[in-house]
Amino acid sequence: MAEKVDLFIGFDLGGTFLKYALGNSRGEILFKSKKPSKGDQSKDAIFSVFYECIKELLVKAKKQGGTVVAIGVGSPGAINFDKGKLLGNTPNLPQWGNAQIRKRLEGKYGIPVWVDNDANLMALAESRVGAAKGYENVIALTLGTGIGGGILINNELYRGHNFAGAELGHMSIAYDGIPCDCGGRGCIERYASATAMVKNYIARLSAKSCEIPDKVTTELIFTRAHKGDREAIETIDETAEYLGAALASLTNIFNEEIIVIGGGVAEAGDEFMNLIWQAVQSRTMKPGLLGLKLVRAKLGNDAGMYGAVSLAIDNYYKTENV
Amino acid sequence: MAEKVDLFIGFDLGGTFLKYALGNSRGEILFKSKKPSKGDQSKDAIFSVFYECIKELLVKAKKQGGTVVAIGVGSPGAINFDKGKLLGNTPNLPQWGNAQIRKRLEGKYGIPVWVDNDANLMALAESRVGAAKGYENVIALTLGTGIGGGILINNELYRGHNFAGAELGHMSIAYDGIPCDCGGRGCIERYASATAMVKNYIARLSAKSCEIPDKVTTELIFTRAHKGDREAIETIDETAEYLGAALASLTNIFNEEIIVIGGGVAEAGDEFMNLIWQAVQSRTMKPGLLGLKLVRAKLGNDAGMYGAVSLAIDNYYKTENV
Repeated sequence: MAEKVDLFIGFDLGGTFLKYALGNSRGEILFKSKKPSKGDQSKDAIFSVFYECIKELLVKAKKQGGTVVAIGVGSPGAINFDKGKLLGNTPNLPQWGNAQIRKRLEGKYGIPVWVDNDANLMALAESRVGAAKGYENVIALTLGTGIGGGILINNELYRGHNFAGAELGHMSIAYDGIPCDCGGRGCIERYASATAMVKNYIARLSAKSCEIPDKVTTELIFTRAHKGDREAIETIDETAEYLGAALASLTNIFNEEIIVIGGGVAEAGDEFMNLIWQAVQSRTMKPGLLGLKLVRAKLGNDAGMYGAVSLAIDNYYKTENV
Repeated sequence: MAEKVDLFIGFDLGGTFLKYALGNSRGEILFKSKKPSKGDQSKDAIFSVFYECIKELLVKAKKQGGTVVAIGVGSPGAINFDKGKLLGNTPNLPQWGNAQIRKRLEGKYGIPVWVDNDANLMALAESRVGAAKGYENVIALTLGTGIGGGILINNELYRGHNFAGAELGHMSIAYDGIPCDCGGRGCIERYASATAMVKNYIARLSAKSCEIPDKVTTELIFTRAHKGDREAIETIDETAEYLGAALASLTNIFNEEIIVIGGGVAEAGDEFMNLIWQAVQSRTMKPGLLGLKLVRAKLGNDAGMYGAVSLAIDNYYKTENV
């Protein structure tokens, strides 16, 4: 009789798409796809998309001679990891609030389910199969519309005592700085997210009465900087300083081994990473810099799926002791 | 035959005094005293003070019908916890650099020794027998000449992957703020330590051409504030805002259960603590505030000794499994 092959399902839920994947026990993705998530519809509608995907993946798993032994789910919003459910609401999926993800999926399939938020799963993915593979103490930042963060301590995700921790985008770098929706002031998200960069660049153009393009993106800023555009260069420089300040504080606190920077902005190129690294080096206490690495995320838009598969793997083997 | 009673020695080394104590397995202090630490002299001279204290405490332990089973040591400076030695130098004990505390004391007495830095031990002490007793996720700040910090996660001190973490005084609250000796800018220590408060108060007096007293202390600032001195009140208010900014970031990151504030400044009274708490509440993300407490440290100047005894207890029972 052939040995049973453990397979894992990973989901990455967003407002527009539900990405889904089948992975093996090494965290490799054997198959991936996506479906419209029906994020603007009811909980039942969104769960029905999950069911379709699971049905499809169970068939694929069988064809591969394997068995799906666990499911990992990444969802926007605050997640109660112990219960596998949402805590409150999430803006892009207006009816998804308090969704009992584990209860619904385990109830239907009898397969164990673990749920975490997307920022945590990006950090987990990079540490299991990405840019921080082999490192046990990791800080990960994703620079996007906002700034998401994840922390691994001794190879485990750090969530805080009631799952409200690791909000690295809401670390303040300016006690009297820009007010943030979170209630704080000077949150790094207001200074160094893609949104903030675009805003800062437009402000610099306005201040000099330069023409403002119809669509300003971080790509445009980096392209223009390469061509010598002064305001673009200054915007990138200041972003690196902001990130340097936040990462120096984080390193003084965590003394991690490696920092992973993800998101569209990080894909801009090595120069930007070098600027961030210079800022980190100039601001961090010397002992924390010993052996510290700063790297670009490797998994891009698939990080959430990889992370969900890794979450399922980690917790399945921890729980089952197989 | 009487049951063996486990007793523990705790040391708190400073530039001026070596404080020492004998404690029981519940972390209670049975006897405490201090001797001049000979901090300006050679390593051998300093160790000779340790030896005298141990000799005295071994006799006391025997008289109590107990046995000293472990020794805990708090020392200024960066400590390699795994090796029980200093990493580099420490300003107030110029010849104490790289001291092999465990090696020397274990070599002489055959009793297991654990060493940590004083900020960590303050946090440990408060969580074991002080203001945070019973809490497993603790942030502790000591406001003194500088700002020291300690972090307990799941009831364990967090040190970072090579013992350079938990430098909470060097979290930046102003990316373009006051340069710090550590190499960073805007470190909270430059804004809210006792030293910083005194500086800020003098600056406010100078700006208004008020007379500056010969000796400005935080006690003086608090006394004057009670009498309605405008500059003193403003100095205290701004200190609370600075601390609120730093603690909000820490709570967004750690989602701890309790924050302990120690040091002379914290002993100023409930009003100051209330101001800090208001600032924390207004700046922290709501989920992190659920159930969060902010309390004043309880053990005062004895925290180091209590922490050293607790360090010995924790690690002895962890190691020996008795």
